[in-house]
Amino acid sequence: MARTLLMAIPHRVGALKKALNILSKHDVNLKKIESRPSKIGTSLYDFVVDVEKEVPQQKLDSAVNELKKLDAANVITYLGGSNIPWFPRKISDLDKFNQTVLSAGSELESDHPGFNDAEYRKRRLKIAENALQFKHGSAIPHVEYTKGELEAWKQVYNKLTTLYPTHACSQLNYVLPMLQQNCGYSENQIPQLQDIHNFLKDTTGFRLRPVAGLLSSRDFLNGLAFRVFHSTQYIRHESSPLYTPEPDVCHELLGHVPLFADPDFADFSQEIGLASLAASDDDIKRLGTLYWFTVEYGLCKQEGQPKAYGAGLLSSFGELEYCLTDKPEIRPFEPEKVAEQQYPITTYQPVYFMADSFDRAKEQTKAWAAKNMHRPFAIRYNPYTLSVEVLTEARRLIPIAKDLQSKMDALHGAMEKIVALQEQDNRLEFAE
Amino acid sequence: MARTLLMAIPHRVGALKKALNILSKHDVNLKKIESRPSKIGTSLYDFVVDVEKEVPQQKLDSAVNELKKLDAANVITYLGGSNIPWFPRKISDLDKFNQTVLSAGSELESDHPGFNDAEYRKRRLKIAENALQFKHGSAIPHVEYTKGELEAWKQVYNKLTTLYPTHACSQLNYVLPMLQQNCGYSENQIPQLQDIHNFLKDTTGFRLRPVAGLLSSRDFLNGLAFRVFHSTQYIRHESSPLYTPEPDVCHELLGHVPLFADPDFADFSQEIGLASLAASDDDIKRLGTLYWFTVEYGLCKQEGQPKAYGAGLLSSFGELEYCLTDKPEIRPFEPEKVAEQQYPITTYQPVYFMADSFDRAKEQTKAWAAKNMHRPFAIRYNPYTLSVEVLTEARRLIPIAKDLQSKMDALHGAMEKIVALQEQDNRLEFAE
Amino acid sequence: MARTLLMAIPHRVGALKKALNILSKHDVNLKKIESRPSKIGTSLYDFVVDVEKEVPQQKLDSAVNELKKLDAANVITYLGGSNIPWFPRKISDLDKFNQTVLSAGSELESDHPGFNDAEYRKRRLKIAENALQFKHGSAIPHVEYTKGELEAWKQVYNKLTTLYPTHACSQLNYVLPMLQQNCGYSENQIPQLQDIHNFLKDTTGFRLRPVAGLLSSRDFLNGLAFRVFHSTQYIRHESSPLYTPEPDVCHELLGHVPLFADPDFADFSQEIGLASLAASDDDIKRLGTLYWFTVEYGLCKQEGQPKAYGAGLLSSFGELEYCLTDKPEIRPFEPEKVAEQQYPITTYQPVYFMADSFDRAKEQTKAWAAKNMHRPFAIRYNPYTLSVEVLTEARRLIPIAKDLQSKMDALHGAMEKIVALQEQDNRLEFAE
Amino acid sequence: MARTLLMAIPHRVGALKKALNILSKHDVNLKKIESRPSKIGTSLYDFVVDVEKEVPQQKLDSAVNELKKLDAANVITYLGGSNIPWFPRKISDLDKFNQTVLSAGSELESDHPGFNDAEYRKRRLKIAENALQFKHGSAIPHVEYTKGELEAWKQVYNKLTTLYPTHACSQLNYVLPMLQQNCGYSENQIPQLQDIHNFLKDTTGFRLRPVAGLLSSRDFLNGLAFRVFHSTQYIRHESSPLYTPEPDVCHELLGHVPLFADPDFADFSQEIGLASLAASDDDIKRLGTLYWFTVEYGLCKQEGQPKAYGAGLLSSFGELEYCLTDKPEIRPFEPEKVAEQQYPITTYQPVYFMADSFDRAKEQTKAWAAKNMHRPFAIRYNPYTLSVEVLTEARRLIPIAKDLQSKMDALHGAMEKIVALQEQDNRLEFAE
Repeated sequence: MARTLLMAIPHRVGALKKALNILSKHDVNLKKIESRPSKIGTSLYDFVVDVEKEVPQQKLDSAVNELKKLDAANVITYLGGSNIPWFPRKISDLDKFNQTVLSAGSELESDHPGFNDAEYRKRRLKIAENALQFKHGSAIPHVEYTKGELEAWKQVYNKLTTLYPTHACSQLNYVLPMLQQNCGYSENQIPQLQDIHNFLKDTTGFRLRPVAGLLSSRDFLNGLAFRVFHSTQYIRHESSPLYTPEPDVCHELLGHVPLFADPDFADFSQEIGLASLAASDDDIKRLGTLYWFTVEYGLCKQEGQPKAYGAGLLSSFGELEYCLTDKPEIRPFEPEKVAEQQYPITTYQPVYFMADSFDRAKEQTKAWAAKNMHRPFAIRYNPYTLSVEVLTEARRLIPIAKDLQSKMDALHGAMEKIVALQEQDNRLEFAE
Repeated sequence: MARTLLMAIPHRVGALKKALNILSKHDVNLKKIESRPSKIGTSLYDFVVDVEKEVPQQKLDSAVNELKKLDAANVITYLGGSNIPWFPRKISDLDKFNQTVLSAGSELESDHPGFNDAEYRKRRLKIAENALQFKHGSAIPHVEYTKGELEAWKQVYNKLTTLYPTHACSQLNYVLPMLQQNCGYSENQIPQLQDIHNFLKDTTGFRLRPVAGLLSSRDFLNGLAFRVFHSTQYIRHESSPLYTPEPDVCHELLGHVPLFADPDFADFSQEIGLASLAASDDDIKRLGTLYWFTVEYGLCKQEGQPKAYGAGLLSSFGELEYCLTDKPEIRPFEPEKVAEQQYPITTYQPVYFMADSFDRAKEQTKAWAAKNMHRPFAIRYNPYTLSVEVLTEARRLIPIAKDLQSKMDALHGAMEKIVALQEQDNRLEFAE
Repeated sequence: MARTLLMAIPHRVGALKKALNILSKHDVNLKKIESRPSKIGTSLYDFVVDVEKEVPQQKLDSAVNELKKLDAANVITYLGGSNIPWFPRKISDLDKFNQTVLSAGSELESDHPGFNDAEYRKRRLKIAENALQFKHGSAIPHVEYTKGELEAWKQVYNKLTTLYPTHACSQLNYVLPMLQQNCGYSENQIPQLQDIHNFLKDTTGFRLRPVAGLLSSRDFLNGLAFRVFHSTQYIRHESSPLYTPEPDVCHELLGHVPLFADPDFADFSQEIGLASLAASDDDIKRLGTLYWFTVEYGLCKQEGQPKAYGAGLLSSFGELEYCLTDKPEIRPFEPEKVAEQQYPITTYQPVYFMADSFDRAKEQTKAWAAKNMHRPFAIRYNPYTLSVEVLTEARRLIPIAKDLQSKMDALHGAMEKIVALQEQDNRLEFAE
Repeated sequence: MARTLLMAIPHRVGALKKALNILSKHDVNLKKIESRPSKIGTSLYDFVVDVEKEVPQQKLDSAVNELKKLDAANVITYLGGSNIPWFPRKISDLDKFNQTVLSAGSELESDHPGFNDAEYRKRRLKIAENALQFKHGSAIPHVEYTKGELEAWKQVYNKLTTLYPTHACSQLNYVLPMLQQNCGYSENQIPQLQDIHNFLKDTTGFRLRPVAGLLSSRDFLNGLAFRVFHSTQYIRHESSPLYTPEPDVCHELLGHVPLFADPDFADFSQEIGLASLAASDDDIKRLGTLYWFTVEYGLCKQEGQPKAYGAGLLSSFGELEYCLTDKPEIRPFEPEKVAEQQYPITTYQPVYFMADSFDRAKEQTKAWAAKNMHRPFAIRYNPYTLSVEVLTEARRLIPIAKDLQSKMDALHGAMEKIVALQEQDNRLEFAE
């Protein structure tokens, strides 16, 4: 488990050296040191120190205690220690996620439709290679899908798109034509992740990363904090095109992708991701459940009727039909209840939660997370640097306050111009 | 029913005259015209025109239609017309509330403990006179309570204050000593409304107005929009000091007043009030129910336990004890359910709603009101002028944006100073 | 000199007693103790302790040092001590200003037109009595002006109002008709302060207080922090109606009052006032100079031309004409230069500063004050309680942040409704 | 000149077709149509239509007029028409800038030190190829610098770094060690643009684009709006290492790059860029002058002394020394004056403007731009999508208001956590 120290070191000769001496004295070996300009001014550097995993916790604790005494102005935040799990702090940290154990295809379950198909397993392994070698900033390799794969896609695509107008939320129906126009969505081809990635970046700033198989819940959710969605690139077994026990391109591209092009949904997904950073294992579990009942299996009330927006529904012909019948129970979306709800993973869901509206679900979830997540510090996402900042001192709020001032100024300025434009159009002479 | 036109008239010679001619042409007689500087700049005046109640609705509608054609920049908001109920727009408009039908004492029900006590009824009528003659800005007359009245107060006061430490919310227990110190709360005297009014004005800006008896639900809630609480000044019948079928000073001063000294509760109460302005009759009904289950009968979770904060509980020894037993049902506070809940008014409540925390109840109520109240325009309370502004055009948002800018600047400035103060205290030398 | 301790005392048995014991041990005698609910929650009380003026500074300092050690969470702000001047913290503190040394009339200079007029001096003393006995919340006594006084007013009124359309800023010309309509402005009567006070309260929340004569610069500016303008009530000597060496009703009512009805100007004036609270003597001097060149002698560019908005100009026929000629020098308004500019007080000004626009002058002044005033803590005005809060700890910012959240919510809500109203008007069918 | 129509088209069958028919009817040929989800909800698509340059303006105007009548809810913004210059609306639009006329090296002036060096000219042309072929998202090609080039760099590097501690602003001295640590800054190598690009992206979100030679002022400034700095990649002629008549890597890497790592400077530069989008030619000229006196030749007061932060100074040994002597005139930074100031481009500057502080220069510039730039509509930069949105209607402000709400919530949440952390550290027992 990675452990990281965050230190704000005064910008003075010898200051860093003194700090490093303390670490050395306590036999704390370092893997990497990185310095960055501090957001809070030129009197400090922000140092990030990655500690080798063999260092005993006790030694690290002693070193930290001594560091803390060094200078009252010196803030040390200790990530990945006894209490606070490690978390990615910038988008390239996602390269550190562990995918090796999941070398896809090797571990298909015996009831997987492709279990006995050596060719299929080999194909998956090959596609998974793309993911294992992917680094942030790389191009996502183009996959030339086989005729059989294309056939499976076509069946799924055609079945689902007949149901969408009646069963899917308006957001999906709104975005789908643009995916057809911009990303090659059609019955005849499987769209390439890179094309979708480009479209989403333009549209909401979401990005795709190819993934070899299932990530841990923590890693997957952590990715969303950076507006990164981990997407598989292989497709289900062609013997059963309407069924798959795990995510595949059909699930990702038809279920998830259209929603990530919606600004509100993108914000919502990122909020779940941000809540998951440094969260306790219990909190990850509850966030995962919330994710399940929204991003995967959520219903939304639209013009008084339930519609599906969860990817698990939007990518399953059977469950998409079923979910709007009177067989399942539909409960109002209340995060505190949702997060505790049990669910089966191999059958249709017996219970769905219907958001009163989509925007409101977002607000409810944020309020719930603010109240229920136990992380002792706040964090802030910086969209310019694709990184998160740890807010542990009052002075770290000053740049935020300045940013808000600036945005408030801009809102006011825009309002003035819009009103001026309106008045030009509307102004009639008031004749005597 | 009062009807009012709001017009923004260009600041030009003849403009008002032209508008008034139109009214006259349609036989719309005016009771009063008032002009004020417009918040949106010196090119317009805000005119308020009160229309005589005998004017037929149809004539008024025709006049309004013609006024609307006069100038596209000219905004006419039509209050108290066919759709939008009249509402007070400044604190002195509360003087217009109708109290005469409720000349207290004359209409005691036959089961009222004072029904057969002519002396008591006379006494009440006399105290009610204070309320009937009260105008905004007047002093609230001092009432010299009789020995019997003081005796009744003493019994109530002593009984209730023994229960407060265990049964009442922390806010009440926090404020009570200050009421003793500043407003003469004690077993031996009935505090005077004017003293409490002064204390509340200093503390949260709440004000008391004496009231002769029950106001209509709309008027009572509308008062809260201006941080005005209508308070009775007479006391229950001395024959049954622990029971009263209606509000009296015991209920007001022990139940309501302490909470109005809490800034969050004051904000919360005003929010309910603001939501009630120009609300439809249905919305008033739902707000009234919400008021019932919060301000009158609310429970609040404190350190994991329910505590009472509703005035109906805090002023009733019996129900205050009862509400924390296992006899009633305690449900979580969810405004959308609360607003639809039936309740009895003559017995102890079978159902209470417990706020998760006090602050959160406020937020939930605001969110609920924003979503559920159907008033087609927004309003804004101006604490400097004790008035509300009707926001019907984009340009009316500009002063609000400027105010937010200014407040954001101030927050930033304060943050800088606090951080500077902290750093002075904390700054240690970082020795080499 | 009043000295005041502000303490946040934990809401626990014995806490206050312990603090008071420390004061007593150091022979610090108290004049008054006042407790109020703390804005930062129910775990603390805010105590305000006024110290007797005879207590030696040294003893007070020792006591404060011991108090500070008592509890790290306990904040003590020490006003009126060695460094920080005393300042009013609520509107009723203005009653403490010292006016007795200025018993008007007794100290007329030998060159005052009324110096030899015993009757006039007596009259002034009588009117000044109104001011000396005035307390916050009292009615301002009605003055029955004499025939000679009315004659002087008429001359001034008629002369000035002929110049206003060409020489005065648009704000004055916009408000004057409303003062005529609402407050009895006319050539034939001298308006009563109470009527103007009522109008200003309704319009911008400004208030008038009668004053016996010149206040100290500090006291006068401090009053503006609470939106209170100290106004004389007597009139110049009738022998020279177009000249007065000091403020009088003509100056106040024609020069100052119309501008205080403008929301931006009201905000601007309050900003100067807030900057003056607890300011050093040097800062008061610079603020006073800024006040001189704006509120008293300011010019403003309107449609490319200079116009007068300063009360010293608007109330002097001669200087109002002169200031727009090419005789004086007109410089751009730059607060850092303005605050250092010398000026004569007995002749027309050789230099004026012209604000680029009125609103901008306000922003420039705020920016300048934020940068140049040396008060080590921020303050916040609470319009609900007419008091200022001293912001010395991060947690005191939380209610401000909550207030901003709430206002931002309200702005968003209002925007939604306005857009909905616009779309109703604008929505046309998009025919195929 | 590119011309672009922005249309918000209702999300209805046939709506787009109808609009396109109108264009076709008026012989308006289209180069490209792009649809995107509208930020203002799923009832509209935002369409961007690029018009062929041969289409006569008159025909386009007729088409636009007919489009405008089509649907009142349909907003058409017309960029690059008769009045409003074309501007990039997303970062990849920067690929459209015209660099071909500037094929570097071919047009060296006769007094250029490399004018007679055919080898040098060939070398420059080769490096310029990198720029001409660069597209947004490409890697910036690695340049293997020659021994002579490295020698020139070494001389410049060593001379300048001896002056920095005394002559350069603290921001440069703060960042330089990090550039050495992260990007290979040293006397012995010329850092690669790609490495710097990566560092800046991490630090402030700034990006580098290689450029073949001088861009037009408009294009260069427009780039800054997207946090993109156009950087040359070739180096000055080795015959005169301390002199160059034009930007080269020494100027870019030593003068500009360090400042772009400062968050405030990055914001400032982007503000200038945003002001330049769609600006009139006159406004571009004034912005260019402002850029000259800040980003190129700015001085800043630090601890009471002038220091250089402009790249033209930081990259010129001679002028860096000269600028802090008493030979040039140093005036206070006042944007309205700066923007009108004449300047020579071939000699040392006779006049510099010194910012009072760096942060303040930013605020002054923003205030000046808000007041002086004449673009009739506001724009908003979206850091998630690296694009700008044109704000022409009230409803486009709603997402901004929601974003501010959300940020205000986050600030409040962070404040609560920081105060809780502080109180844990500070909380001492208050013993009785």
